[in-house]
Amino acid sequence: MSNGPSRRTFLRGAAAGTALLAGTAARAQTPDPLITEVQPWASGFGDPVDAHPYGMPIRFEDDVVRRNVEWLTADTISSINFTPIHALDGTITPQGCAFERHHSGAIELSKADYRLMINGLVDRPLVFTYADLERFPRENHVYFCECAANSGMEWAGAQLNGAQFTHGMIHNMEYTGVPLRTLLEEAGLDTAGDLSGKWVYVEGADASSNGRSIPMEKALDDCLIAFKANGEALRKEHGYPVRLVVPGWEGNMWIKWIRRIEVTDGPMESREETSKYTDVMKDGSARKWTWAMDAKSVVTSPSPQAPITHGKGPLVISGLAWSGRGAITRVDVSKDGGKTWQTARLAKPGEKMALTRFYLDTEWDGEQMLLQSRAMDDTGYVQPTKDQLREVRGLNSVYHNNGIQTWLVNASGEAENVEVS
Amino acid sequence: MSNGPSRRTFLRGAAAGTALLAGTAARAQTPDPLITEVQPWASGFGDPVDAHPYGMPIRFEDDVVRRNVEWLTADTISSINFTPIHALDGTITPQGCAFERHHSGAIELSKADYRLMINGLVDRPLVFTYADLERFPRENHVYFCECAANSGMEWAGAQLNGAQFTHGMIHNMEYTGVPLRTLLEEAGLDTAGDLSGKWVYVEGADASSNGRSIPMEKALDDCLIAFKANGEALRKEHGYPVRLVVPGWEGNMWIKWIRRIEVTDGPMESREETSKYTDVMKDGSARKWTWAMDAKSVVTSPSPQAPITHGKGPLVISGLAWSGRGAITRVDVSKDGGKTWQTARLAKPGEKMALTRFYLDTEWDGEQMLLQSRAMDDTGYVQPTKDQLREVRGLNSVYHNNGIQTWLVNASGEAENVEVS
Repeated sequence: MSNGPSRRTFLRGAAAGTALLAGTAARAQTPDPLITEVQPWASGFGDPVDAHPYGMPIRFEDDVVRRNVEWLTADTISSINFTPIHALDGTITPQGCAFERHHSGAIELSKADYRLMINGLVDRPLVFTYADLERFPRENHVYFCECAANSGMEWAGAQLNGAQFTHGMIHNMEYTGVPLRTLLEEAGLDTAGDLSGKWVYVEGADASSNGRSIPMEKALDDCLIAFKANGEALRKEHGYPVRLVVPGWEGNMWIKWIRRIEVTDGPMESREETSKYTDVMKDGSARKWTWAMDAKSVVTSPSPQAPITHGKGPLVISGLAWSGRGAITRVDVSKDGGKTWQTARLAKPGEKMALTRFYLDTEWDGEQMLLQSRAMDDTGYVQPTKDQLREVRGLNSVYHNNGIQTWLVNASGEAENVEVS
Repeated sequence: MSNGPSRRTFLRGAAAGTALLAGTAARAQTPDPLITEVQPWASGFGDPVDAHPYGMPIRFEDDVVRRNVEWLTADTISSINFTPIHALDGTITPQGCAFERHHSGAIELSKADYRLMINGLVDRPLVFTYADLERFPRENHVYFCECAANSGMEWAGAQLNGAQFTHGMIHNMEYTGVPLRTLLEEAGLDTAGDLSGKWVYVEGADASSNGRSIPMEKALDDCLIAFKANGEALRKEHGYPVRLVVPGWEGNMWIKWIRRIEVTDGPMESREETSKYTDVMKDGSARKWTWAMDAKSVVTSPSPQAPITHGKGPLVISGLAWSGRGAITRVDVSKDGGKTWQTARLAKPGEKMALTRFYLDTEWDGEQMLLQSRAMDDTGYVQPTKDQLREVRGLNSVYHNNGIQTWLVNASGEAENVEVS
């Protein structure tokens, strides 16, 4: 479809209307009586229903995609990319733009080839096919998955300019799967018996195997063996056909292409939970087993990739908040770098271990802002400042940075990643 | 990545294990100690993180797509296609496989070209740009959208063989948008005043314009001017950049590419609400203004496109239920064509005007079943049989068939669309 002369006429017509007014009274133009041509999109046919059996975003949204940062990792096989959270709204993350983290790349594994073994300290070691898994009772839950290294570059100061890059190693989907508890019971684990000191060791079918240890209490509580996300099959890059879901805990434990679950009498102390995914403290010692993602939030708009383009007057400040320990109960927003705070509106009451969308419907006077958000969860925890975190943990950390993020918004509406003390 | 000799070895190994047992005790195989080769997917690299900036489903899921039925409409421009609900689980419908219904095709309209006019009986007729809309307070809601003609072919008996085709003109997404009420107030409508007899007439920017009248009470209640679905921009085929959301009411009123909202002192009696989208009764008279989609449900698995392939023993029967008048409170499932019923498990408590997933975790003895589901909503309404509907409305209808669906499942696990009386 051509957007030729008629389009230009229409735009000129619209621009001839009353200019946009500042303030709450009117944020639109009065109709222009001079528009006489029919626009091309109103005078011809569009696409038929068989044009795109599986649809993609419209070409105008080509920039709303996952992006990696080349200098962050040595190669793109063992690397990460970032969800374009600056351009999304609501809470659900479409699979197509949900961040990826691979240790040896996203593998292709068919349902026919898929097997899941449960072994170790169980009465009946078992191997499940994909079809077997479909015969157990399923649950549906919306959960966020956040990489432990999300915001990791912020330990050393404001380095990446954009919410996608500082906070985009997170996604939020509706999972369908079988409780891990059900499969462990199927393998003869006596979940009513004494399981103190028992763990599960979980690993994936990719070359990295990415093995992790999970205490039995968590394994039996809410972990899911998931095969659908947002209604459809998991995408290849999210673990097709089956991944582990570990609600609220760091994404590295959400084993993709999960192939084996071993019941053990202690943690495995694997590479992924010793040399990696531990927190190096001030004194150089490493803190391990820091699985839960603490309460955190970020303003997604305005932000460096989503500047204010409309001038003074009504402004919607929006962002995301989450907690791996429960539900978000409140989010405050500051325009002055944390001196004063206003409580934001939650789009819905916070849900356990799921993203919560917040809005602050406000006015912008055109002056510089130091925008921050501060999340609170139902354990009573309040998101700390970056400096509060550094006080306890020093500057050696990579993981678990849930400090308050600051965007400097200047008079032209542009934003950048800054630090305030 | 090649699936060569190693794959065959692995499959042969697995098949050598203990055969699948019937019954609840074990639904998997014991591990096979003979697997010695490393599978190809575990011995090489997969895709890097920059392989697919916006991802698509894995190739093994190529059949999980929207499909149209060629003989249903004269052409594919003014036509429909169907969501593959037989292959989905949970409740969210990804935009890429959510059904489409166009009257003159899916048009391409940029945000820069987009305008929304509010005119008619308002104090201040206004034209909004896309950027204007982003300055008003937003809401997030998950709602189903069902075409009035969904299951329409079932009036004349079981004709289409598959849940995708009988019930697939429905999708369920998380919308972000501005309440229509807010924009009407911005145009000076006194929503506290006497609005009796007032309507809005809404139309789209496509050639069909698809104009519909909506009573003011509904317009002010819960209608949304939406610009995101499942977190991201609306897809072209779902009305990019802006569509109307009319919760619980027939999909034809959910105007895509919405360009104009006129406040009127009565309904417009447009083509789309007189010659179309009215219900021709037994006596030939037409019933109009039947907007709400009554409570309805369907078993999505097993179903003709999702047969039972695993033999006797544990079986998960699953499906969807919804009501345009409120929340689903209960779904019953029958295996004997409605003689006896068991109450299914709802994955979550029903939410207002959103899809509800139900499961019946049961055993299959390998005998023939006449599978049905029956939804109830919080108004006390119980989904009727097709015959009960026909008794009231005769056989002239196309729209609003919410009768109970029956799948005949035979001893081999295959299913077909049948009628029971």
